[in-house]
Amino acid sequence: MATININYDKLGAGYLFPEIARRAKAFAEKHPGVELHRLGIGDTTQPLAPSVVRALQDAAERLSKGDTYTGYGDYEGEKFLREAIRDAYRERKVEIELDEIFVSDGAKSDSGNIQTIFGPENIIAVQDPAYPVYVDTNVMAGRTESFNTVTGQYAGIVYMPCHEHNDFFPELPSEKVDLIYLCSPNNPTGAVATKQQLTQFVEYARQLKAVIIFDAAYSAFISDARLPRSIYEIPGADECAIEVNSFSKSAGFTGVRLGWSVVPKSLITEDAPASKLNALWYRRQSTFFNGASNIVQYGGAAALSPKGRRECQAIVDYYMQNARIIRDGLTSLGLACFGGDNAPYIWAKTPNGVRSWDFFDKLLREAHVVTTPGSGFGPAGEGFIRFSAFGRRESTERAMASIRAHLKT
Amino acid sequence: MATININYDKLGAGYLFPEIARRAKAFAEKHPGVELHRLGIGDTTQPLAPSVVRALQDAAERLSKGDTYTGYGDYEGEKFLREAIRDAYRERKVEIELDEIFVSDGAKSDSGNIQTIFGPENIIAVQDPAYPVYVDTNVMAGRTESFNTVTGQYAGIVYMPCHEHNDFFPELPSEKVDLIYLCSPNNPTGAVATKQQLTQFVEYARQLKAVIIFDAAYSAFISDARLPRSIYEIPGADECAIEVNSFSKSAGFTGVRLGWSVVPKSLITEDAPASKLNALWYRRQSTFFNGASNIVQYGGAAALSPKGRRECQAIVDYYMQNARIIRDGLTSLGLACFGGDNAPYIWAKTPNGVRSWDFFDKLLREAHVVTTPGSGFGPAGEGFIRFSAFGRRESTERAMASIRAHLKT
Repeated sequence: MATININYDKLGAGYLFPEIARRAKAFAEKHPGVELHRLGIGDTTQPLAPSVVRALQDAAERLSKGDTYTGYGDYEGEKFLREAIRDAYRERKVEIELDEIFVSDGAKSDSGNIQTIFGPENIIAVQDPAYPVYVDTNVMAGRTESFNTVTGQYAGIVYMPCHEHNDFFPELPSEKVDLIYLCSPNNPTGAVATKQQLTQFVEYARQLKAVIIFDAAYSAFISDARLPRSIYEIPGADECAIEVNSFSKSAGFTGVRLGWSVVPKSLITEDAPASKLNALWYRRQSTFFNGASNIVQYGGAAALSPKGRRECQAIVDYYMQNARIIRDGLTSLGLACFGGDNAPYIWAKTPNGVRSWDFFDKLLREAHVVTTPGSGFGPAGEGFIRFSAFGRRESTERAMASIRAHLKT
Repeated sequence: MATININYDKLGAGYLFPEIARRAKAFAEKHPGVELHRLGIGDTTQPLAPSVVRALQDAAERLSKGDTYTGYGDYEGEKFLREAIRDAYRERKVEIELDEIFVSDGAKSDSGNIQTIFGPENIIAVQDPAYPVYVDTNVMAGRTESFNTVTGQYAGIVYMPCHEHNDFFPELPSEKVDLIYLCSPNNPTGAVATKQQLTQFVEYARQLKAVIIFDAAYSAFISDARLPRSIYEIPGADECAIEVNSFSKSAGFTGVRLGWSVVPKSLITEDAPASKLNALWYRRQSTFFNGASNIVQYGGAAALSPKGRRECQAIVDYYMQNARIIRDGLTSLGLACFGGDNAPYIWAKTPNGVRSWDFFDKLLREAHVVTTPGSGFGPAGEGFIRFSAFGRRESTERAMASIRAHLKT
């Protein structure tokens, strides 16, 4: 008699984005003809860079011929792509070896799966608010109690609040934690950790033999040269941190699917000497996964070529111009806004302490704008709302015009 | 202080195929200039079908333009692809609804991940020999004790031996089991389950509220119309079976990556009413996964179009001709051979009861042919060796010539 994984029943609500999609769809069905402006989910809208498209088509062409067709690739990704990733790190003066890089189908998969190489007894710490995958995957793995609807938290998880007064970067946890999820540039707050802030966490993790899981999926949006794009820019991070990154936002691969993680061989824990965690992740990936699509990997390498990078940078710049439009528009309405400088998200305080989902519904109903309620990312996100800069320019402008027209009344 | 998942240390050996690659590589490095014939891993060698290539290139083209670019797709896969999959089932008189189909990056991912929606207390049963992913993923999830090097088994798993005397299809387990992995056409034995054989298991599973995980990744190789290509051709299977399938072998997508699973809403267990397991798998996929590559999904739909199917069938026929060449060659040397009729694998008995790895090494050393040792798939595979029909014709022929030349001496 088969029995289900009862940890799934501990989950507080559906995964955030399907719930937003459900509400938007319900509204659209009730109001046919009304145009919805989507500034919710961080979904890219700009076409792929020309060099990427050419590389994808050339890869398909190669697979059409007997002498250039290839089947299974390396579980950890094609060498040419791992070399291109290594070279990109090198520009930041970070040395990563090829067998420390694991290409995947996206940062979501890696941030979800990485916890499986750690034991069930590990206490995880997350920024609050945070990308829901960190929490949800640990709930499903059984590392928590049920969702507490009063606190909006799961017992068993250490929440590290990110507020206005700490510049949306958490203080060190005061209790014992083992796995620490950090995301910078942050989704959802748009805050970017400084070297000093990360150094504090790296020193803490090394001291306690904790492991930091660093999500750098938005690193391409950092233009301020002083801000670290990789946690490995912090000395000692290779001993205590795993980094996850993605082509989704930097190259428009949200639907194309490509990412990577770095598990340094020098990463250690109390019970795992050097190379062990690297080997565990290789074992996990080679057993549960058969590598990212070969065609897509060629596209990823093209995105990292000098020409591809210039083209992708233009797309990033386009989105960052959206970010300015959103931020300026909201600010002019008197909303306090954060992020949006080195990140594609604007984190806006709702007016008069209105609750996130209420403000979400109000924006949907009155201005026909889909956003993401801050509380969906954790209890400390209550009273905030996230705007995504990944829309089309004209759609972003129309959305802001609509908000201006309706929120003033 | 982070601690590792100690279940990984229970694993008996490295994942089988990397170990084969390691031995082949070591041989090649020691003997430069010697040509290796690869009949080991089931890696496709024939180019993609023309309609598939065109669809992949068109998809890349669409992503290059602002008005046809798309980002995130549905977690469960593009509707057009799920419709094509549903229609293919319909031809076998099997009715599957669209929200029962979950597109993925491959059958390996699905066969590995599916166990996560079940509780840790479930006893799993596997065919012995079996594709290693079923066992390894359950070991890593903690459902077993350590590997016993004497028995070649993990305590906690029920092995269902597949021998010559049961036509390589197991008897019903005599002890309590909860999750039953079945693979047909079988990897590695090449045996194909009859309707009668599957009916026995479906009745057993329904009676005990066990769940069958049916791996049909090789169904395209069945030419005998009487043999079931899907477990849902068996009445009642929708109440007790999950099916996993793939484009890897039918359309040459081993490197391109695409597969799907079916979790019927009518599937029930003692603690899960109708729709529950379907919802759990949706939750798992939407939390840990962001959908298969959109480009690749267009390629998959093209493979299921009438023209694509004719083209893919020609590729399947090509491999099945290889299977005949291998089987005839081995038989003429006096080796007892199984499979290869409705499956791309030939399961050969080693001569004089030689052990699998020894025969593997002998074939590698003397005939320069890479195969797969039967014992790598489980203890009942001892004394057998698997030949893959996925090589190029000339390479397959040269491999057989080399075996004939060297095994005779």
